[in-house]
Amino acid sequence: MGAATRYLDSDQPFALYRGEILPGLRLAWESWGRLNDDKSNAILIFTGLSPGAHAASSELDPEPGWWEPMIGPGKPIDTDHYFVLCVNSLGSCKGSTGPASINPRTGKPWRLGFPELAIEDIARATRLVVQHLGIDQLEAVIGPSMGGLTALAWLKQFPESCRKIALISTACSATPFAIAIRSLQREAIVTDRNFRDGRYTDDDWPEVGMRLARKLGMITYRSAQEWRQRFGRKRQDYFPQTLFGMRFEVESYLETHARKFVGQFDPCCYLYLSRAMDNFDACDSDESLKSLFQRCFSGHALVIGVETDFLFPVDQQRDLAQALEATGSEVSFHALDSLQGHDAFLVDMDGFADPIREWLQQPLLSATKTAK
Amino acid sequence: MGAATRYLDSDQPFALYRGEILPGLRLAWESWGRLNDDKSNAILIFTGLSPGAHAASSELDPEPGWWEPMIGPGKPIDTDHYFVLCVNSLGSCKGSTGPASINPRTGKPWRLGFPELAIEDIARATRLVVQHLGIDQLEAVIGPSMGGLTALAWLKQFPESCRKIALISTACSATPFAIAIRSLQREAIVTDRNFRDGRYTDDDWPEVGMRLARKLGMITYRSAQEWRQRFGRKRQDYFPQTLFGMRFEVESYLETHARKFVGQFDPCCYLYLSRAMDNFDACDSDESLKSLFQRCFSGHALVIGVETDFLFPVDQQRDLAQALEATGSEVSFHALDSLQGHDAFLVDMDGFADPIREWLQQPLLSATKTAK
Repeated sequence: MGAATRYLDSDQPFALYRGEILPGLRLAWESWGRLNDDKSNAILIFTGLSPGAHAASSELDPEPGWWEPMIGPGKPIDTDHYFVLCVNSLGSCKGSTGPASINPRTGKPWRLGFPELAIEDIARATRLVVQHLGIDQLEAVIGPSMGGLTALAWLKQFPESCRKIALISTACSATPFAIAIRSLQREAIVTDRNFRDGRYTDDDWPEVGMRLARKLGMITYRSAQEWRQRFGRKRQDYFPQTLFGMRFEVESYLETHARKFVGQFDPCCYLYLSRAMDNFDACDSDESLKSLFQRCFSGHALVIGVETDFLFPVDQQRDLAQALEATGSEVSFHALDSLQGHDAFLVDMDGFADPIREWLQQPLLSATKTAK
Repeated sequence: MGAATRYLDSDQPFALYRGEILPGLRLAWESWGRLNDDKSNAILIFTGLSPGAHAASSELDPEPGWWEPMIGPGKPIDTDHYFVLCVNSLGSCKGSTGPASINPRTGKPWRLGFPELAIEDIARATRLVVQHLGIDQLEAVIGPSMGGLTALAWLKQFPESCRKIALISTACSATPFAIAIRSLQREAIVTDRNFRDGRYTDDDWPEVGMRLARKLGMITYRSAQEWRQRFGRKRQDYFPQTLFGMRFEVESYLETHARKFVGQFDPCCYLYLSRAMDNFDACDSDESLKSLFQRCFSGHALVIGVETDFLFPVDQQRDLAQALEATGSEVSFHALDSLQGHDAFLVDMDGFADPIREWLQQPLLSATKTAK
């Protein structure tokens, strides 16, 4: 982790959503900007599956973060005004407790011995950092992709704990298409000869499975339309041709991304988070989306989707926006025609910057409503 | 192969498109209906990647074929009027010569020793059966999916050899998205611990890789929209839950299809045909699509695409139709709103039956044109 990472350690047993108990935990977090005296200017950002807490650079850690163009002084999430917090998800491997960290009872990595994780647990663990900072109510919660699921899990468990919420390229639950993709990614990992039921070592890493999983991920994170413009049928000569591949530029693009990912993310953490995404359903306690929002949120919601996203198709964001509107909440809904598909929020700042800036700047119409 | 299968054997060296030589070949074929005296009523059907020549049942072989509802007496491809021919693709493993058949020089299966195969070779090998039957000109060539690539390779090599052509859910070349999917399927197979550079045996089959490849195939053959209606988030209890899967019905659906496929199709044949699809480009000799059609076709073309197909997106069929129209050919173009995606031609007979029947029944407007 970088120099700006801070940690919250708890030795209290943490009861998980699916029933098991975690004997204490550590959470890695970073923040930007200054928390004001009445602690009313905090924005919490939940991450997608793979990023850590390093969402942006800072004086302590000048390395660009995963949402660098979005967070900073004068940027859409303006750290001159807001205190911005990002916590590495419980279950991940970027400083927080997860299957890759040490099980205190055995002194060895948890791996498949880690209890079953739910998206609700990520939200509830993150709450520990928010409470540790003495924040009662957040100005905003922002969740892109898996982070949007976590934002919904947050709302569900902590009603009226944020004045604004941004749900970006996300959904109330996964489509069967998204489940099929992730199921295949997990199958590629667990069938890797080096996976050995989680007993892989640094020298025999399940690299083949992780590479396949990452490439399949990349295929679903971008759009076919973007690739037609960007790659077409161009040949590549960067990597040597393999037995049945590496002839086309799109193949070398996938290979480059896969190589970067393989050593950086723990296979078991990937499996646990991936399964948690499939299993998450904001409405799993037979509460409709509308009554969930009615019960838990009365502020200003921002919902953004991308027409070319086929992992979290824009219909799913439209459903979220409609359910929010049906409760009488203020909702700004944007269906962007960006070519970058699911990953557009990371790369297409033109589309995302203005909606996020405007939504944060607008005073709450419901200030009177919540005060009543 | 079934009782209706017939074989053409040739011990003549067959020069392949990419430069190598095949020392003779065998082709498995089936036919339905009666070839008339002047041999003018023949319809040739090219197949997708995995089906064999058994496109329909017959008295000799009552087993339903892969296009059973389409071919037969009174059916859209009406065997009361037409002689219908289907040949197992060169390079496949359903009776024709391919990487799974015996290399006469070594007495062992070709496997990776098979020379590089191109879609053009499939068309040219098929031509041997057509010539063997004494057919000079075909009434129609029909090509769905990979079969459409083969139909284009046929046109390119044998100008004016068919009066009608049907290009179904196909394209003049693969998109980078389709290449990425197939590249990943091939990577899953060649990295399977049992693949061993093609030296797999019946007892150590690269089953894991073939299963992943097939599941990824199924994901791209249907549509996310269909699955939302069909599976939603329903749980499955047919298969036991695995470490990180088999919780949802969509997962058991994929598993069922994968199990059926694994023993039925040879891994090396899959690799060769898959790569041939990526490499195919109807315009690879710097001929535009329009001038290709201008040079090679003047009859009535049927082009069908499906709005939900993301492996061969409907834009690609629109491009084919426009290029055909630009040559002055008669073109019937249908963009179907079927939910079944790329596989719709196999399952959605409502959408495909009428266009195919009408196109075959219509007399050629260009009869005068071709006679001039």
